[in-house]
Amino acid sequence: MRFPTAALALPLVLGSLVPVVACAAPAVPPRTAARTTSEVMAAAQPSEWRRLDPENTLYLELATGRVVFELAPEFAPNHVANIKALAREKYFDGLAILRSQDNYVVQWGDPDGEDAAQRRPIAHAARTLPAEFHRAIDSALPFTPLPDGDVYAPLVGFSGGFPIARDPGSGKTWLTHCYAMLGSGRGDTADSGGGTELYVVIGHAPRHLDKNVTLVGRAVSGMKLLSTLPRGSGALGFYEKREQYVPVVSVRVAADLPPAERTELELLRTDTPAFAALVEARRHRREEWFLDPVGKVELCNVPLPVRAVAPR
Amino acid sequence: MRFPTAALALPLVLGSLVPVVACAAPAVPPRTAARTTSEVMAAAQPSEWRRLDPENTLYLELATGRVVFELAPEFAPNHVANIKALAREKYFDGLAILRSQDNYVVQWGDPDGEDAAQRRPIAHAARTLPAEFHRAIDSALPFTPLPDGDVYAPLVGFSGGFPIARDPGSGKTWLTHCYAMLGSGRGDTADSGGGTELYVVIGHAPRHLDKNVTLVGRAVSGMKLLSTLPRGSGALGFYEKREQYVPVVSVRVAADLPPAERTELELLRTDTPAFAALVEARRHRREEWFLDPVGKVELCNVPLPVRAVAPR
Repeated sequence: MRFPTAALALPLVLGSLVPVVACAAPAVPPRTAARTTSEVMAAAQPSEWRRLDPENTLYLELATGRVVFELAPEFAPNHVANIKALAREKYFDGLAILRSQDNYVVQWGDPDGEDAAQRRPIAHAARTLPAEFHRAIDSALPFTPLPDGDVYAPLVGFSGGFPIARDPGSGKTWLTHCYAMLGSGRGDTADSGGGTELYVVIGHAPRHLDKNVTLVGRAVSGMKLLSTLPRGSGALGFYEKREQYVPVVSVRVAADLPPAERTELELLRTDTPAFAALVEARRHRREEWFLDPVGKVELCNVPLPVRAVAPR
Repeated sequence: MRFPTAALALPLVLGSLVPVVACAAPAVPPRTAARTTSEVMAAAQPSEWRRLDPENTLYLELATGRVVFELAPEFAPNHVANIKALAREKYFDGLAILRSQDNYVVQWGDPDGEDAAQRRPIAHAARTLPAEFHRAIDSALPFTPLPDGDVYAPLVGFSGGFPIARDPGSGKTWLTHCYAMLGSGRGDTADSGGGTELYVVIGHAPRHLDKNVTLVGRAVSGMKLLSTLPRGSGALGFYEKREQYVPVVSVRVAADLPPAERTELELLRTDTPAFAALVEARRHRREEWFLDPVGKVELCNVPLPVRAVAPR
């Protein structure tokens, strides 16, 4: 079997990690030396992982399974609160995935959302909100910068597990449109979104959308349930017939489910030595397969490790 | 309906283009002014399009339809010649897609490729070839540079319709791993590939593979047939059971099919004013939906327009 890359792609969900012994490496490589991804992950300490907070986790339930999202209240507090409120009044249940555009986004919402007479009513949550395209840089906000630059922003890196950008000149920071990011669709005006229609990036990072639409979180499990959906044949990948819609069984805040029904996941903290070593591993690719490692890594090519854990 | 982006995503295959009239734009915008993607495409002249060369076009036939690839003999002459030779001796017919890794690649080849006794014999073509990871920069090779930099390479842009990078320091140029690029898998040594196993990028551009593996072309139609395949549950997205393999009906050089059976496509030339205007349109996003256009574009976010045309 010939690979475009051997034994190096990190699965989104790491099950049991088997330590890799590299023959040419010292028995106990120093923490700061360049190691392979597998070596770095095998050496990560329990304290370098964090559990998802159920109050900050959203489940999109489809007939094919569950997509798990971590929400980003540090970046979009009002949208996150509203999406949770929408979920709690069961607004999304029975709505549908309406759009699947190749190399771009999958989007769900109300098929009748444009018809004020027919659309799903909202009891308590808001239908629209002011935009949360960016926020102020704050020293209390964690930031792990990347060293290799970015086409779109002055600085990029990670904060609380999310890919972000910063512009020290304007004092702004914002979430970035990497694969699996979750956003809140809007119309032509900034305040026309609010979380009733949500999209997920399923292709090459559409970074031109950064600061133009409110991102609210990131899928941490189940992406393949979205990325493999049939593409819509209409403009922008919208499904053209109702029978093509993919039903949304429900959207729930994880905290509202009994613990036994939750998906228990741990994420590698992005403010740890293990994550710093992972970034170096991705820059320098010590795996045997790589013959000419580039020594650089771009924001959306840094994996954000996730693993299943036993329920609490 | 709320969009993460309205009326701006260019479909891979443009059918009939409807000119868009922007109310605020002059009646006849100058060629160099920033326009929307739709405006640019509507203004492209017939001479700015080129037909696929049937001798340089590969068809991957699946039960679900055809994926069309343009080959890149300027960058990988020996691999391209060998893949055509393999196709012409029907080497690929009845083999299978063996791998579908989310946000990474789909790959096809011989399920028994590692078993010298069982593997598909090759009559005339080569099984392996010296690597063609890069080539010398040559003034005869067209190059349309992009202005906004790149994380991985000193210079990036387009050549003959392909995304490429250049390093003036080393004098090398190479194809880049953007979405839909076609590559020739290999083992751990540089010359262990040759085109018997081919992969296609289905996710965020894995640019760390550049110069580590031989790219040979790009899918110009039918990507959704690959990108929506069920993901493999094995390591690296390999299918774990033979019944999960997706049969390759055949791989053919377009020139070997009767004209009536070919997929006639035109691609926008990347050395034209229309393409330069398209790049500007993607950088500055004059569509009403965009509230804060970034003014930059990254290599793999530049669309390469393709349209169906009548047979010759």
